[in-house]
Amino acid sequence: MRDMLGREELISVEEALDLLLKSAPFRTPPEINLPIEDAYGMVLARDAISREDLPGFSRSTVDGYAVIASDTFGATESLPSYLTVKADIPMGKKPDCFIEKGEVAKIATGGMLPHGTDAVVMLEHTQQIDEKMIEILKPVAPGENVIQAGEDARRGEHILQAGHRLRPQDIGALAGLGITDIWACKKPAVSIISTGDEIIPAHQPLKPGQVRDINSYTLSGLLSLAGGIPNRKGIFSDTYDVLREIVEQSLSDSDMILITGGSSVGTKDMTAQVINDLGKPGVLFHGVSLKPGKPTMGGLINSFPIFGLPGHPAAVAVSFEIFVKPVLEELSGLCRNRFDNEKNTVVAKITKNISSSPGRQEHIAVALEERNGELWAVPVLGKSGLITTLTRADGTFVIPLKKLGVQEGDTVKVRLF
Amino acid sequence: MRDMLGREELISVEEALDLLLKSAPFRTPPEINLPIEDAYGMVLARDAISREDLPGFSRSTVDGYAVIASDTFGATESLPSYLTVKADIPMGKKPDCFIEKGEVAKIATGGMLPHGTDAVVMLEHTQQIDEKMIEILKPVAPGENVIQAGEDARRGEHILQAGHRLRPQDIGALAGLGITDIWACKKPAVSIISTGDEIIPAHQPLKPGQVRDINSYTLSGLLSLAGGIPNRKGIFSDTYDVLREIVEQSLSDSDMILITGGSSVGTKDMTAQVINDLGKPGVLFHGVSLKPGKPTMGGLINSFPIFGLPGHPAAVAVSFEIFVKPVLEELSGLCRNRFDNEKNTVVAKITKNISSSPGRQEHIAVALEERNGELWAVPVLGKSGLITTLTRADGTFVIPLKKLGVQEGDTVKVRLF
Repeated sequence: MRDMLGREELISVEEALDLLLKSAPFRTPPEINLPIEDAYGMVLARDAISREDLPGFSRSTVDGYAVIASDTFGATESLPSYLTVKADIPMGKKPDCFIEKGEVAKIATGGMLPHGTDAVVMLEHTQQIDEKMIEILKPVAPGENVIQAGEDARRGEHILQAGHRLRPQDIGALAGLGITDIWACKKPAVSIISTGDEIIPAHQPLKPGQVRDINSYTLSGLLSLAGGIPNRKGIFSDTYDVLREIVEQSLSDSDMILITGGSSVGTKDMTAQVINDLGKPGVLFHGVSLKPGKPTMGGLINSFPIFGLPGHPAAVAVSFEIFVKPVLEELSGLCRNRFDNEKNTVVAKITKNISSSPGRQEHIAVALEERNGELWAVPVLGKSGLITTLTRADGTFVIPLKKLGVQEGDTVKVRLF
Repeated sequence: MRDMLGREELISVEEALDLLLKSAPFRTPPEINLPIEDAYGMVLARDAISREDLPGFSRSTVDGYAVIASDTFGATESLPSYLTVKADIPMGKKPDCFIEKGEVAKIATGGMLPHGTDAVVMLEHTQQIDEKMIEILKPVAPGENVIQAGEDARRGEHILQAGHRLRPQDIGALAGLGITDIWACKKPAVSIISTGDEIIPAHQPLKPGQVRDINSYTLSGLLSLAGGIPNRKGIFSDTYDVLREIVEQSLSDSDMILITGGSSVGTKDMTAQVINDLGKPGVLFHGVSLKPGKPTMGGLINSFPIFGLPGHPAAVAVSFEIFVKPVLEELSGLCRNRFDNEKNTVVAKITKNISSSPGRQEHIAVALEERNGELWAVPVLGKSGLITTLTRADGTFVIPLKKLGVQEGDTVKVRLF
C-alpha cells in the first residue's frame, strides 16, 4: 500500500496481527479420539472429567505406622507412647485387620489405612522395642500423612480444560484417573509453498544466480515445534497460473498456507493477486513496520489463513514467531496463557550500542555468553539475506517501535529459539 | 545410608549429581547418518562443514538498481545523479550484460550483480524518469546492499559443531549450503520399569489398596521432550528375580533404566540389591536432601546409568529434571550451554509465605497469574502423593538448601514445565 506520494505505508505489527485474528473466525478444529499415550502435546478438545473418586481409599503418604492419632498426643522423645504392632499392611490389598486403641499397623507409602486408624506416624519418629512393640516419639494430628479418599479428584470433577495442551504430568494424571483416551483437537496441516525462479532444491548444485530452498526447511521445523503438521509442497515457478493451482490444491488439503521464497516485488504482487482472486477478504496487509520481516503479507481466503513470507532466512523466523504462530495456535484450539509470551526468555546485558530507526519494531539476533557470572547478549550482525546468521544466534531481542536503540550494558529480554 | 545413630544421612543434590556424572564415562553415542528433513532436534555427531563458497556470486539484498558506487557519490534529492538503465537482471540466471560508467541494471532481492557493478541502490532512493533513465537520490558505498561471494560461508568452514542440537534455522542453513544429510548421535533408548504389587495398568478398575501406573506415562513424555526414546516395559512384581530379569534385559536393549513405582522401603532395598549385584560401582546414592524427591536412588551398572525414582508423581518430575535429564544429555552427545539452565524460567512474585526446613533443597509447585500487569506465583499446595497437583501447576521454584523459606512478595525464579 502506498500513500499519495507513492511511498510505502507500513502497518504496525499489532495492527497487522489484529487484522488477521479479528477479520474472520477460523475453522473450529476437528476433534479426534486418541489413546493417552499418543496425546502428548495435543490440545484437549473437551474437558477431561474424572469418572471416580480418587483415591478410592485413604492412603499413607509415608513409610511408618497407621495409628489412632489420639494415641500419640503428648508423645515426646523423652516420654514416648508405647503402642502394640497388630499388623503389617500388605501393598495393593485391602487390610483385613481392625485397629483398636493402643494398637498400630505397619504401613508403607501408598498403603491403605486399616479400619480404625486416622493418621500415620513416620518411621523416623518411631523406635522399635521388639517385634510387637514400638515407641512413638512425636505426635500426629488426625489426617496427618494421609491422603483422604476423594481428596485427589472427585467423580465429575473437570481435571483439565478444553484448550489445554497436554504435558507429561497431565498424561500421567489422566492415567492415574483411569482415563485412557481423550478428545483432542486435530493438529492443523500447513502447506509450505516455495516460489521463485531462482530457488532450487537443496540437493542440486548451484548455477550462477540461483539459491537453494532454505525457508521451507526452517518453516517445517518451526511448525512442528509449534504444534502444526508441515507439508512441504515443493518449489513452483513465478507464474500466476502455477501459483494459483498449487494454492487452490492446498486450500483443499490443509488448514493454512505459507508461501515463501519469491522475494522480488513482481512475485509478491502476483501472490497478492492470487490471494485476492480466490476469496474475500483477500490480502489484509502487505508490508509491516518490522525489521527484519517488512515484506510479510497476510490474508484470508474466506476464513482460510494464508501468508506470503519474506525471502530472507532471518526475516522468515521473525515473521513466523510474530504472525504465523498465533494463527496456528488459534487453528489448534489452544487457549494461550498470557504468560506464554514470557516463556523461553532470558534477561541479559547487551555488549554494544545498537541504533534503530524509529517507526519500526526491530528484532536483533544475539548469541549469549557468560562473562564473570553474568549473562551477556552479543549481537550477531550479518547482512540481511545471509543464511548462516541464525545458526550463530541463540535468540533475539526486540527494540520497540518508538525506541531509537539500546546502549551497551542495557538489560534486554532475549527470546530464545 | 545411616550415620552411627541410625539416622539417615542424606547427600546433597550437587554431590549426588557429581557422583553420577564423574564416576564413569558414559558410552559414546553411536553415529547415524540422516537426511536433514529427519534431523530436527537431533544432536550433531560430527561438525557440519561447508563444501562450497556461499553465495557463489555477489547478490543483492534489496530491490533496486545495481550500480558502480562511485557514480552515486554526492547524489541528493535536490541534485540527483542521472544514470542509464541498461538491463533488467533476471532472477536465477547469470546476467550477460556488462555495466559501464553511467549505467545501471535493475535488480531484485537475491539477484546476481552484473559485471562492473559493486553496490545496489534501493528502489525507494531512486526516481524513474523514463524507461531508460533514473535519478539516484542517495549515494551508496561500494559493497552496500550486496552480499559478497563467499561472505555467508567459506568452503571448509565449520558451520555447526558436534554436540549441537539442530534447530529449525540450522536445518535451513544446511539446506542452503547443499548439505542434505548429516551425522547425528543416535537418541538414547530409555527403559521405564514400573514396580510395586499395588500398581495396576491405567485401563484397569481399581481394587482397594491399588493405584494405577502414573509415572511411566509422565516419564515417557519427559524423556521424549528431553531427546530420549522411552520404552515402557510394563509393570513388574516386587520380587528380586522378576526385577533382576527385566533389568538385565533392559541393560541389553537400552541405554538407561528408570525404575519407578515401588515406593516401599522393601522395594527400594531390593532395587538397590539388584543394581549392586549386576555390576560395579552399583548404587552411588540412595536418599537426597531434596523435597520432593528424597528417595531418589542413582547408580551405575558398569558405565550404564540406572535410577530408582520416587513413587510420588510430583517427586518423579523433580527427580527427572535434576538427575535424569543431565545424564540423558550426556548420553545424547549434547554439549550444554551454561545458559540452558536459564531457559524456560520466568520471574514472578510469590503470593504467600512458605517455610522450608534448612538442609534440603525444596521445589515448590506454583500456578502463574497476572495481577495488575505483574506476574504472581501461587503455590499449588497439595499433600505429596496427590496425582493432580502438577496438572494445576505451571512450574516450580527452588528454595535452596540453606534458606528457611520465602516471604510474600519475594521475587522467585519459576522454571516452567
